Amino acid sequence: MIPFNEPYITGKEVHYIYSAVATGKISGNGKYTKLCQQYFEERWGFRKTLLTTSCTDALEMCALLLDIQSGDEVIMPSFTFVSTALAFVRQGAKIVFVDSRTDHPGIDESQIEPLITDKTKAIVVVHYAGISCDMDTVMEIATRHDLFVVEDAAQAIDSYYQPKNSEPRALGSIGHLGCFSFHETKNIQSGEGGLLAINDERFLKRAEIIWEKGTNRAEFFRGEVNKYNWVDTGSSFLPSEITAAFLWAQLEELDKIQQRRKEIWNLYFNDLQQFADKTSILLPSIPDYATNNGHAFYLVCQSLDARATLIKHLKSNEIASVFHYLSLHKSPYYELKHDGRELPLSDNYADCLLRLPLFNNLKNETIHLICRLISNKLLL
Amino acid sequence: MIPFNEPYITGKEVHYIYSAVATGKISGNGKYTKLCQQYFEERWGFRKTLLTTSCTDALEMCALLLDIQSGDEVIMPSFTFVSTALAFVRQGAKIVFVDSRTDHPGIDESQIEPLITDKTKAIVVVHYAGISCDMDTVMEIATRHDLFVVEDAAQAIDSYYQPKNSEPRALGSIGHLGCFSFHETKNIQSGEGGLLAINDERFLKRAEIIWEKGTNRAEFFRGEVNKYNWVDTGSSFLPSEITAAFLWAQLEELDKIQQRRKEIWNLYFNDLQQFADKTSILLPSIPDYATNNGHAFYLVCQSLDARATLIKHLKSNEIASVFHYLSLHKSPYYELKHDGRELPLSDNYADCLLRLPLFNNLKNETIHLICRLISNKLLL
Repeated sequence: MIPFNEPYITGKEVHYIYSAVATGKISGNGKYTKLCQQYFEERWGFRKTLLTTSCTDALEMCALLLDIQSGDEVIMPSFTFVSTALAFVRQGAKIVFVDSRTDHPGIDESQIEPLITDKTKAIVVVHYAGISCDMDTVMEIATRHDLFVVEDAAQAIDSYYQPKNSEPRALGSIGHLGCFSFHETKNIQSGEGGLLAINDERFLKRAEIIWEKGTNRAEFFRGEVNKYNWVDTGSSFLPSEITAAFLWAQLEELDKIQQRRKEIWNLYFNDLQQFADKTSILLPSIPDYATNNGHAFYLVCQSLDARATLIKHLKSNEIASVFHYLSLHKSPYYELKHDGRELPLSDNYADCLLRLPLFNNLKNETIHLICRLISNKLLL
Repeated sequence: MIPFNEPYITGKEVHYIYSAVATGKISGNGKYTKLCQQYFEERWGFRKTLLTTSCTDALEMCALLLDIQSGDEVIMPSFTFVSTALAFVRQGAKIVFVDSRTDHPGIDESQIEPLITDKTKAIVVVHYAGISCDMDTVMEIATRHDLFVVEDAAQAIDSYYQPKNSEPRALGSIGHLGCFSFHETKNIQSGEGGLLAINDERFLKRAEIIWEKGTNRAEFFRGEVNKYNWVDTGSSFLPSEITAAFLWAQLEELDKIQQRRKEIWNLYFNDLQQFADKTSILLPSIPDYATNNGHAFYLVCQSLDARATLIKHLKSNEIASVFHYLSLHKSPYYELKHDGRELPLSDNYADCLLRLPLFNNLKNETIHLICRLISNKLLL
């Protein structure tokens, strides 16, 4: 069976874990945490970064930093992972869900502004499959209404927003805050893991405190205060050095990983493009202003049934393919809290989007085989 | 310099991490997570356990499971780590702090009952230094007032409550819920890490959901539901298999680790006992109903100044010794929210308690040296 995902291992992860153990300090915020954070900041221009135990935790840090209170409204797409919403709901937010775009599962930027009320506090965009939302439009709306923007860049490491005649800007560096995932299904990974990118100066000091259980431990170790005390809300958001050492090995091979993932993506696209217009499937569309980081390759089938048929066909040929999110506005937990607006495109992606295997060790011939299997089925 | 702590490594941690990587599944809830959880349940009789990324996270799971709402009151000692309180404060709880015991830094059980109001929802006890609180007394109060009991057993792995003529019961298995830490400073460790023990049947199903981001993923994979959906609050509380594999290696050597730690504790106690009554220092006192898991060895000095002098003396001889908590009711974050009661014993432990180095590779001759250094200073 060809799996949907196979976590890529560089081989050096365990070497760095040994090295972390040798430092005698394997709880959080040690040598490898600092190395990783410095890498992120220097390579992608985040003002400051903090490793977290998951992207969920990075999103929770955003909710705490934005001081989300009961009744505050947060605007985000419905077609996203539970954590995007849950992190804000835990602080009492009411989620105002937005539909997806016709050409892309990301948030329909044109639907955001009419949903803003005097209770709106933030817009959370999700760069689905690592493909950028239209960030100039989003930031312009946010500025006009004095709102914060959080980028859920869980899938979007090393991907960029680059409108015509502009310098590319790394996803996660444009909003006030950005969040990344290093779950085993991501381009670079540490089993479970995440990162908060803090781009707005106002959050720098408090982020460090919230990260370390609401204490001013970091200031204490820098000698800026003479006692380490409970000064704010927070949690234990920081991962161990074991996790950070693992991630460091992945970062060292980032370029190699990215190159191969994009190659695979292009192989799928080129193969499938040859017959896609003779069938009802849609291939991913990448807006002019977005780059592709090879995170995910997906098709959009004509219906739930068509997708089920294709999944079954691939499975009978020992190929795993998987659907993705269910619309959050229709989830058992949120359906009754949702304001009742229909979000048909989100529902359509929930029913019809199908992801194909994409991991570094996937062989070219397997990719061609998968494409042939799909075309055989769809052209029948 | 002799450090205060040196994380113990069995040598097999990295072997198991390799093995986890080979399974192709290194995100949470895989083979090693299940092995660890099964070990905890079988060895100490917890009804069900879930690994978490930290003890803070296990405590947060308790706050969510107990459905703590704004204004609910939670009773706990003031002399504890920030997380004990923070996890409940994040859900809106008002913390009602209790003083420590004269003979022990743990909660003074006799002061709990007068603090119960109709808003009280839970009592959180902390087994300081792995030494049990008087659990029969606590559970009896809780039952009478229909309150939940959470055991913060962060330091209390493999320690027991054993009143006269009773079977020993593992700490963390007595309250409705129990929480453990595997921070590098703990007896067994994974850099950062924790565990939730669920002893009350009513929490079993929901704990699993809260653990996995409020989704019914576990039920889905067991085939009990046919969609995996957002059904409740929660967070990403589960650690990676990398962390679980590391912890598994530690668990395999638990008995050896515990034996050595208790040996060290006894060496300190026997050496210091010979002169303690000629000085003003107090040695740890272990109640009849409690066992000792060798987690920490501490002295209680006569004053803040006496402690500072002793720390300095030891430091000049290249020995690290460290104080512990500041009273949470006096912390910058909670002082104004506290009801104003004085908690003098908590303050006294904050000012006067001093912990000596205690880790598996600490040599016997170093322990004797430390004791001689202390006696030389105090008998002057």
